[in-house]
Amino acid sequence: MTFAATVFIGTSLDGYIARSNDDIEWLTSRGEKAGDLGFFAFLDSVDAVIMGRNTYDKVIGFGEENWHYGDRHVGVLSTTLPEDADPRVTVYRDLDTLVADLDQRGIKHVYPDGGRLVQSFIRAGRVDRFIISVAPVLIGSGHRLFGELHDDVPLRLDGVADLGHGFAQLTYTVER
Amino acid sequence: MTFAATVFIGTSLDGYIARSNDDIEWLTSRGEKAGDLGFFAFLDSVDAVIMGRNTYDKVIGFGEENWHYGDRHVGVLSTTLPEDADPRVTVYRDLDTLVADLDQRGIKHVYPDGGRLVQSFIRAGRVDRFIISVAPVLIGSGHRLFGELHDDVPLRLDGVADLGHGFAQLTYTVER
Repeated sequence: MTFAATVFIGTSLDGYIARSNDDIEWLTSRGEKAGDLGFFAFLDSVDAVIMGRNTYDKVIGFGEENWHYGDRHVGVLSTTLPEDADPRVTVYRDLDTLVADLDQRGIKHVYPDGGRLVQSFIRAGRVDRFIISVAPVLIGSGHRLFGELHDDVPLRLDGVADLGHGFAQLTYTVER
Repeated sequence: MTFAATVFIGTSLDGYIARSNDDIEWLTSRGEKAGDLGFFAFLDSVDAVIMGRNTYDKVIGFGEENWHYGDRHVGVLSTTLPEDADPRVTVYRDLDTLVADLDQRGIKHVYPDGGRLVQSFIRAGRVDRFIISVAPVLIGSGHRLFGELHDDVPLRLDGVADLGHGFAQLTYTVER
């Protein structure tokens, strides 16, 4: 048995997760009014959080008091972060090692976070579910949630919700 | 008084309206099961349809029996289509001329269709409403619905709907 992975992420209607300069104020300013959009309930269902180096650096920048992951296993997929950089995280050098270690640890539900990491997970066929909160704005450019693919990824729509303050939430399962 | 414009369009979850080779089978094959997704009710509310040259050529390719526009005013924004190419359409050489002529005709509700035309309308601040039907698939590349912008376009979410067969429909009004 291996783990399931759920992407939980906010985007603009035109599919960006951040501006080119990494700014997400357009998202957070709207998100503050809308509440957590179900994030903490989702996080409760997760036993491992995986992020790339860029996202890790941002999370670190939020400060100790904003480390929401508690005792969960936290992995950083990075070729550059020193292995002993942070006692709270396990550093992985490649996706295969990461997957093998999560399976070894008996992890059941993974939260892959960050644009490039999510794209790697999708291309590797390792995403099982998407929960996408769409902010009511077009920003025109920046870092996209979705990237190029070798093959189409067919989905099943599990639900749509109006979360208030302009946020729509779409939930999908990847069809195998 | 000028007209309002509503974009009614289908996209993949990753924001494409067609593959790079213009293929939309990934959309139509799924759309056939889901029905018209509200298209003909929407079309009933429209008194002018505007498209670019690429979309016009595609619509022509569908044949006479698939010309759904009836007596509506149909405009093609194109620098290359001869003005007398088709008695059913009015050819416009630029957006300003088009807007002035629609206003002159007393047009109230416009349906701009096709990727590049929609992007031109958005950048010109001429889109008032979006009705986006999201097909349950990632296709990875192709022609995008949304393009670059000079400024953010803030939106109001009017509604979300599960249309069945995996289609989610999101309706927005552009905030002025």
